[in-house]
Amino acid sequence: MGSEGVVTESLSPFGIARATVNEKPLTKEEVRKYDAYFKATMYLCLGMIYLKDNPLLRQPLRLEHVKARLLGHWGSDAGQSFTYIHFNRLIKKYDLDSIFISGPGHGAPAVLANAYLEGTYSETYPDKSEDEDGMRRFFKQFSFPGGIGSHATPETPGSIHEGGELGYAISHAFGAVFDHPELIALTMVGDGEAETGPLATSWHSTKFLNPITDGAVLPVLNLNGYKINNPTLLARISHEELEALFRGYGWEPYFVEGSEPESMHQAMASTLEDCVKKIKAYQSEARETGKAFRPRWPMIVLRTPKGWTGPRKLGDHFLEGFWRAHQVPITDVATKPESLLKLEDWLRSYKPEELFDEAGRLVPELRELAPSGNRRMCANPVANGGLVRHKLHVPDFRDFKFHILKSGVSEDGSMNRFGTFLREVVRRNMDNFRVFGPDETQSNKLDAIYDVGKKVWLADYFEEDEDGGNLAYNGRVMEMLSEHTVEGWLEGYILSGRHGLLNSYEPFIHIIDSMVNQHCKWLEKCIEANWRVKIASLNILLTATVWRQDHNGFTHQDPGFLDVVANKSPEVVRIYLPPDANCLLSVADHCLRSSNYVNVIVADKQNHLQYLDMDAAIAHCTKGLGIWEWASTDIGEEPDVVMACCGDVPTHESLAATALLRQHLPGLKIRFVNVVDLFKLIPAHEHPHGLSDAEFKAIFTDDKPVIFNFHSYPWLIHRLTYARRGQHNLHVTGYKEKGNINTPLELAMRNGTDRFSLAIDAIDRIPGLGNRGGVARERLLNEQITAKNYAFHEGVDPQELREWRWPF
Amino acid sequence: MGSEGVVTESLSPFGIARATVNEKPLTKEEVRKYDAYFKATMYLCLGMIYLKDNPLLRQPLRLEHVKARLLGHWGSDAGQSFTYIHFNRLIKKYDLDSIFISGPGHGAPAVLANAYLEGTYSETYPDKSEDEDGMRRFFKQFSFPGGIGSHATPETPGSIHEGGELGYAISHAFGAVFDHPELIALTMVGDGEAETGPLATSWHSTKFLNPITDGAVLPVLNLNGYKINNPTLLARISHEELEALFRGYGWEPYFVEGSEPESMHQAMASTLEDCVKKIKAYQSEARETGKAFRPRWPMIVLRTPKGWTGPRKLGDHFLEGFWRAHQVPITDVATKPESLLKLEDWLRSYKPEELFDEAGRLVPELRELAPSGNRRMCANPVANGGLVRHKLHVPDFRDFKFHILKSGVSEDGSMNRFGTFLREVVRRNMDNFRVFGPDETQSNKLDAIYDVGKKVWLADYFEEDEDGGNLAYNGRVMEMLSEHTVEGWLEGYILSGRHGLLNSYEPFIHIIDSMVNQHCKWLEKCIEANWRVKIASLNILLTATVWRQDHNGFTHQDPGFLDVVANKSPEVVRIYLPPDANCLLSVADHCLRSSNYVNVIVADKQNHLQYLDMDAAIAHCTKGLGIWEWASTDIGEEPDVVMACCGDVPTHESLAATALLRQHLPGLKIRFVNVVDLFKLIPAHEHPHGLSDAEFKAIFTDDKPVIFNFHSYPWLIHRLTYARRGQHNLHVTGYKEKGNINTPLELAMRNGTDRFSLAIDAIDRIPGLGNRGGVARERLLNEQITAKNYAFHEGVDPQELREWRWPF
Repeated sequence: MGSEGVVTESLSPFGIARATVNEKPLTKEEVRKYDAYFKATMYLCLGMIYLKDNPLLRQPLRLEHVKARLLGHWGSDAGQSFTYIHFNRLIKKYDLDSIFISGPGHGAPAVLANAYLEGTYSETYPDKSEDEDGMRRFFKQFSFPGGIGSHATPETPGSIHEGGELGYAISHAFGAVFDHPELIALTMVGDGEAETGPLATSWHSTKFLNPITDGAVLPVLNLNGYKINNPTLLARISHEELEALFRGYGWEPYFVEGSEPESMHQAMASTLEDCVKKIKAYQSEARETGKAFRPRWPMIVLRTPKGWTGPRKLGDHFLEGFWRAHQVPITDVATKPESLLKLEDWLRSYKPEELFDEAGRLVPELRELAPSGNRRMCANPVANGGLVRHKLHVPDFRDFKFHILKSGVSEDGSMNRFGTFLREVVRRNMDNFRVFGPDETQSNKLDAIYDVGKKVWLADYFEEDEDGGNLAYNGRVMEMLSEHTVEGWLEGYILSGRHGLLNSYEPFIHIIDSMVNQHCKWLEKCIEANWRVKIASLNILLTATVWRQDHNGFTHQDPGFLDVVANKSPEVVRIYLPPDANCLLSVADHCLRSSNYVNVIVADKQNHLQYLDMDAAIAHCTKGLGIWEWASTDIGEEPDVVMACCGDVPTHESLAATALLRQHLPGLKIRFVNVVDLFKLIPAHEHPHGLSDAEFKAIFTDDKPVIFNFHSYPWLIHRLTYARRGQHNLHVTGYKEKGNINTPLELAMRNGTDRFSLAIDAIDRIPGLGNRGGVARERLLNEQITAKNYAFHEGVDPQELREWRWPF
Repeated sequence: MGSEGVVTESLSPFGIARATVNEKPLTKEEVRKYDAYFKATMYLCLGMIYLKDNPLLRQPLRLEHVKARLLGHWGSDAGQSFTYIHFNRLIKKYDLDSIFISGPGHGAPAVLANAYLEGTYSETYPDKSEDEDGMRRFFKQFSFPGGIGSHATPETPGSIHEGGELGYAISHAFGAVFDHPELIALTMVGDGEAETGPLATSWHSTKFLNPITDGAVLPVLNLNGYKINNPTLLARISHEELEALFRGYGWEPYFVEGSEPESMHQAMASTLEDCVKKIKAYQSEARETGKAFRPRWPMIVLRTPKGWTGPRKLGDHFLEGFWRAHQVPITDVATKPESLLKLEDWLRSYKPEELFDEAGRLVPELRELAPSGNRRMCANPVANGGLVRHKLHVPDFRDFKFHILKSGVSEDGSMNRFGTFLREVVRRNMDNFRVFGPDETQSNKLDAIYDVGKKVWLADYFEEDEDGGNLAYNGRVMEMLSEHTVEGWLEGYILSGRHGLLNSYEPFIHIIDSMVNQHCKWLEKCIEANWRVKIASLNILLTATVWRQDHNGFTHQDPGFLDVVANKSPEVVRIYLPPDANCLLSVADHCLRSSNYVNVIVADKQNHLQYLDMDAAIAHCTKGLGIWEWASTDIGEEPDVVMACCGDVPTHESLAATALLRQHLPGLKIRFVNVVDLFKLIPAHEHPHGLSDAEFKAIFTDDKPVIFNFHSYPWLIHRLTYARRGQHNLHVTGYKEKGNINTPLELAMRNGTDRFSLAIDAIDRIPGLGNRGGVARERLLNEQITAKNYAFHEGVDPQELREWRWPF
């Protein structure tokens, strides 16, 4: 099966180096050494994929030395390692403070090989010592059951970016260098990864980087040309288009293209050095003048063959420089002796006997090429962020409390109030805490922050920006209309030892489901890698919630992010739905002080009824759920019904339903329960926050009807409580995917979460009400219809519903 | 609060037009008319936001004419409408076949206004007639309870792109023009939307567009400069960078910048015409020579003020040309009489009395500016895709069946087999069906398709592509490493009347959670817009599933997409987990023939045991779940235990567990149940596929232990069955977020889904087993430990487990 295209030769990755910078900074001797070092890393990469024994090939290679199951990826290793070792030279020459971010998929061998050769790996894992035995164990563990994966997983020293899912290398890198003015994040971007949306837009991050207070990202786009089974787009467009693209993104692209070793070493050494000098010069200029600006930061396009240094062909098929080099390059060593021989020849072509000494340690003349101590990229403490994490200075949240005159009567803007608290958090942590969001910090009523930290903006300015634009070269709020980018920045920021919060409209947080998934997985694995020091939690504030998206319509109504989060390991996820402002403050304080979690807080941004004074709120949030006695009528007795709720708007409607029941059915024994911490509902053995069965029964009973009004999809509550004895009595209401342009009341009615429906649900489930129940039910239905008709004609809910207050 | 930046004046959106093409194709009279038409649309946009009565301002504006709650977005309306009306001229002049895609957020007023003026709206909704009464209703319904939303929702004639969530305008547009060679999708891209990742990478879609067999996309990036509260990036970079960016993306950018009406009309008219001519010329060249190529397709950067034609300032604040124009521009008309007056002046500035006749209809000299019939962009049948949908020719799937020698003994590659079926589907529908995926069609073992349709590739070619590259200018498989882009293409393709399938690794489908969410919501609303004809279902095949991602590690293990889908309206979602190849064929046949659903099929790509011959598979899939008598021992009796399963790997382990139970506890009455159609588990009143309680009991009993081995997170089963009487007896196993580099068996063990754990779970729950149970349990535990130790040391599972067959 051929291909019909006209072959383009000008984009070939083979041959003598073609480079933007054509100096020769290396002596012949240096070229020899760097090439040897490069070969040592390639030898280790190949060894990881294949060998479980005979690591230095001191015996002829036999099948018993080879792993039973061959796993791992060869394709991107060479380009990454090539970059890493040439940056080592500059780290030593200029005493650079750098980390390495490995973007290409499954590219861990390159990082692992370098971590091992520079000594970091053995320091972290002493059994993977720098000798033959250690190397054997180092090889065997790779992609081996119980061992380590083929990405730069949390087990990899120096990694803050696993890259199992593609797209976030650049945004993670920027997150790491914000407020780390001396740091350079050397960032490999795979040309596969470069096709993803998140990566494609993250190049714009330079418009948010301040050359005075932030460090720099040096991206190296490795055009090795292929993904799993396809060429990559960026390797198959003209040089002119490629160059224009990166200029358009605002970068100064440098090219290093080819495969011939000597010229490539010179080209990469000189190009990287030129880039480092440019970065230093821009930083100096800004720092000396005190005037920030957005330079055209340098980036490198490194075009090398996929699987570089491997055989160009295997039999009739292309290997090096084709997608067949992506994964395990020779797959049939177990069945074909000639393949085993081919592998042995290939391994020996790197001359391990010249690279490693008798003990199996890298020879001294090569060892000295790597930096030492924390200057080694895999040993940089920034990449074990907990090590460099400063304490977050959180003001006393009680100082921001709302004074409740009467529960269920006083009203306040929870989010505005929270904004003032957040402003003080920002003020106390001006180089250590940032607020992230796509475009909604102001819409979400958190704009009080701007008093102390504006929105970072290094792009151009217009005159109207003075009119409340709140833009600044130096700010604390990071807004770009890319949930992916801001989430990636935040992840990079906390992974490198700082603190932050992301605020977003609730429905569109699904855009980053997968990113949050991956961050949860990272955190979960960090528990196992016990040398990793805890980092700040990833705090996500969801507002503009479903029940107040009545006007934006169906596309803006989706509270299902909680279902995604609830699937993650209970060790790392927490979900809070504070019912009012004081609870929001209490919960937020807890989240900001916590570590190693993903905390999700759901709270609406509109004004709402307030219920708990600060002491009560603290007690309530500490317990995570509880009976609100002031709203209950069952004190000291078994209730007839439990009116339960979780979420601010649902609490409001449950309370109104409780009032209707008390009005229409006086004497009814009602217990009012509010849940703040969602995982309280899970059994204690399944989540650290879970209630014991006895505790659960003490609140919900195990035989009385429970009308549970939930913020999100109702099935989540069933899923959390399925093992509880009383679960059959649980009637859960929530968003059932019914909505359009509605008033808040109509939207609630369509989903059965309005006060009338809730009261009727209770009546329908309380045994023995008889005729009283029937009469009350009828009245409630009529009230409901009247309200609905009013809303339909006037376009707004009736005033008495909008301004409803707890009447007792 | 000021801003510290240096003001850039060269990027101002105000003033006399600056344009790439500076011809003056319009007569003075035409300029007057187009300007009047433009004003008519702007009048309607403003009217929609504010008025519920007095639509033609024939009385002085009073508060009672104004809606109680003001909603809607003004910011992007002008730029969009301006583009729409000037394209109308070209449609008439060149008899173009075009649709309009409205990317900017909440930009529906522009589309609605044009649909109304061209007559489409009244034809679709006769009560919104072209007279004063109709206009009043047209105004009132906008963003009004029970009315229509502020995006181009399904209720909007001519829309295939709602845009509630941003990022997909370009990918939807490309999807619509693939295999529609005459179609031009005029596509507005908001500069807010342009910052999203999905949009940023979708510009590369030109590398997949064949100028012979496909139509064209003409993007108009409207740089109105602002989002909700922020400037946009692309409006704040230099002209040089902006131009380079689009050249780099492979487009030829045309600029139209300014605000002065007359010059802007001439500039836009001439620029659009030049672009249309370019498109036609490239198409002619390719079609006449029969040689496809990738030209530098034209696109337009339209820089106009946000809220153009509105007041520049309101009081001391900027409105036009600033973010304050984003939503409702004057918010206090209800409380400030002077604001009401200001609104009236503004409305009257468009001179409605000159635009509309006595009856309230657009005056004839303006009416004739719009095209007629199906040439009107909002009347194009392509945008009501069901109208133009051709039947999909599906071969008889029975012809591809696997001949079962013995259930649970024969082995086959379900996915390879499915690939041959899919090849024939492709062959029979060469202009009507495409297969989409990020980079994995071959890895997913569907490469049989390449026999009849290769991978579309219009970028450059290398010599090694001949070596199984399977690339072609003209193909049927669409692969780009952007789940967002391929999903967007597929959505656009089926929304415009065609058929398709997306295949993806299971874990990374979360990347498009939000897109699938939004497509479900679109479909759900189409049920209400009953003039919309049903379209083909969106078929998603998930493979490379969690249980065979043992080697790729934790990041590749996430089956939770099903939870996201299960939250959507039961009217539009279906989930199938076929246990073997024949079931996969049966299910896939059903999905391909279905309409208006999102079908999710989960099936692994490795070789697996096969169970059902084709007749049994059809019967099983038709029922959706059932008892497998050949594996059961309870025939004609009540079982001691029900061994249930859902998913191919879980079925395999459940069957092995059943064999262990039969071996260790002969005489035990075991019922073996397999579930294919997940929604069978829901009560009948909650989903059209749901079983009645009696049917559920007949299969699962309501008092016997059920050991349910599930493919995904176990809680989903609990959530679906919480209302069933027997749910307390349901013990569900599934992926519990426990994994790393493991063998398949180890991975199963860590999550309790391996055969030993399942058999032990059964023993622990069957009452009255006594000592027999204890002995069996002990043996099973020992077997489990032995197997685990072997895997740990050898890196593979023991052969007898890998090659296990049903022994009865």
